[in-house]
Amino acid sequence: MKATCWILAGFCLLFCCKAEEGLNFPTYDGKDRVIDLNEKNYKQALKKYDMLCLLFHEPVSSDRVSQKQFQMTEMVLELAAQVLEPRSIGFGMVDSKKDAKLAKKLGLVEEGSLYVFKEERLIEFDGELATDVLVEFLLDLLEDPVEVINSKLELQAFDQIDDEIKLIGYFKGEDSEHYKAFEEAAEHFQPYIKFFATFDKGVAKKLGLKMNEVDFYEPFMDDPVHIPDKPYTEEELVEFVKEHKRATLRKLRPEDMFETWEDDMEGIHIVAFAEEDDPDGFEFLEILKQVARDNTDNPDLSIVWIDPDDFPLLITYWEKTFKIDLFRPQIGIVNVTDVSSMHLKIQ
Amino acid sequence: MKATCWILAGFCLLFCCKAEEGLNFPTYDGKDRVIDLNEKNYKQALKKYDMLCLLFHEPVSSDRVSQKQFQMTEMVLELAAQVLEPRSIGFGMVDSKKDAKLAKKLGLVEEGSLYVFKEERLIEFDGELATDVLVEFLLDLLEDPVEVINSKLELQAFDQIDDEIKLIGYFKGEDSEHYKAFEEAAEHFQPYIKFFATFDKGVAKKLGLKMNEVDFYEPFMDDPVHIPDKPYTEEELVEFVKEHKRATLRKLRPEDMFETWEDDMEGIHIVAFAEEDDPDGFEFLEILKQVARDNTDNPDLSIVWIDPDDFPLLITYWEKTFKIDLFRPQIGIVNVTDVSSMHLKIQ
Repeated sequence: MKATCWILAGFCLLFCCKAEEGLNFPTYDGKDRVIDLNEKNYKQALKKYDMLCLLFHEPVSSDRVSQKQFQMTEMVLELAAQVLEPRSIGFGMVDSKKDAKLAKKLGLVEEGSLYVFKEERLIEFDGELATDVLVEFLLDLLEDPVEVINSKLELQAFDQIDDEIKLIGYFKGEDSEHYKAFEEAAEHFQPYIKFFATFDKGVAKKLGLKMNEVDFYEPFMDDPVHIPDKPYTEEELVEFVKEHKRATLRKLRPEDMFETWEDDMEGIHIVAFAEEDDPDGFEFLEILKQVARDNTDNPDLSIVWIDPDDFPLLITYWEKTFKIDLFRPQIGIVNVTDVSSMHLKIQ
Repeated sequence: MKATCWILAGFCLLFCCKAEEGLNFPTYDGKDRVIDLNEKNYKQALKKYDMLCLLFHEPVSSDRVSQKQFQMTEMVLELAAQVLEPRSIGFGMVDSKKDAKLAKKLGLVEEGSLYVFKEERLIEFDGELATDVLVEFLLDLLEDPVEVINSKLELQAFDQIDDEIKLIGYFKGEDSEHYKAFEEAAEHFQPYIKFFATFDKGVAKKLGLKMNEVDFYEPFMDDPVHIPDKPYTEEELVEFVKEHKRATLRKLRPEDMFETWEDDMEGIHIVAFAEEDDPDGFEFLEILKQVARDNTDNPDLSIVWIDPDDFPLLITYWEKTFKIDLFRPQIGIVNVTDVSSMHLKIQ
């Protein structure tokens, strides 16, 4: 056990506790925690929790299938509520017909979306309504909006992120007014877009960043873009990110898949299916990335990459709908408005 | 749209189909597909499907909470059965008390495990009982047991896998008897351990492989081990993998988490929690990997690495049980037998 001593040399503060079985997956304990929200109880609920998550749903029909499906949705929220109880996160339901007035008051717009109230902010969750996706999303929302990079080893972790948008800025310190503007801009996009900062001269040098400068990285691109005209206000940063957030190649993610899907280009999507872990898929993806790099300045090109491994429940559905075999990479055009699509089979 | 033409240059066979909404997550359609298996109907069920999955469960108590939890488990299987219906995968339940005789006949041993019957094989699933994990596991089981690497670009995909065991062999071709032995050995471990092969001289040269030789890669190690005494029989390969499959550093995976957890070292586990996507976690993990590399020959050292991002539902449970904060990396010793643990807080 020499090795462990070695690892632990840098740590201290030993403490003991019970381990139980270690891997006890939570199952629903039968206690109802999800609130049926109405005009009488909503103020109290908003006060009671640090974060309140409201599912804005259409009225439920009385047939057996709709009832059962609604129960399943309730169970997703009940289990999330149970798991997140220690973090003071509450859950509720708002019916778009029965509670129309309340919905308007609270700013809930899209049926099927879940809205999160955190301090003064309203954040829309437009992703897969599964307990694990939702819990991860909400825990990410509890973290600091900006992640600070202190060393060159930590910078490696930053370098490894290439499949989503990221920003990094160099600032004097946590008290700098420009850092504060950056932090407030980050809150607008948390947890969808990752914001990093460094206060370290060496790290900044490695990144080619000047003081108070922020770099914007498009997914899959080798080089970042310096955001012009530093230092920036919060509004300038928000504006820049909003303008640049539709990337040439975007990976579909469970936490915002519906938002991405609705953001089509004149009614169409170019969709590529490729499993990154699979040699065929990897090879195909490398070509796709190269195409994206060569065409990053073309505003008319946007490709959605779907890794089927991220969506096991949709695989057979896609195969049936698009008449494709997802054991191999595929690319095609989907017409989102008039529900027709073409797919191209790879030789 | 020049770019897309460029991508598509290598492909052909265009075809059209309806797209519907593209991202319609399956919800339970109300049709019961999971069979309550008994001595009368099991032969018919085994014949009807290409793969039959049986949950071997303990008798269900009559209290409300147990009933509700059992219903939830049934729903996990019902949804999996619905999604996988086009692939001829059937599902059933076997009660360990009521169907004890049948269980014995079929070789079902561990309560709570799911057993998959595929051709002549019986595969145990001892992972997280969630529909997405299960569906992905079963789809992986439908793929070929050996993945063939044809080019140096595909080899990059192979190189990128470093967090699980992998094997790669160089053979003359698909008809080689040594390749066939390798393929049959692969079936013993599918889909838990990945087997690759190449028939390409250039790829083999890059890997340093001689004809009919197989390399075994332990997770997180830079260099593989040549399996001695080539060419091998199926039994020799199976024996070697079984002997070497407990790695110095293992990542806990949803698909076999319980099996890993039960494979403790004299009643204890060294457990490290680290988020790979997080700069802190990444830095910590790099140290852990170095320790594993330095101690790969020490049979008494085995560390289980848990990335909390893979288990969002367990995060608050672990924090409570081990009294730790999982927003930061943590390492500790868990005593699996007498349910006590120590955790070491990182400074």
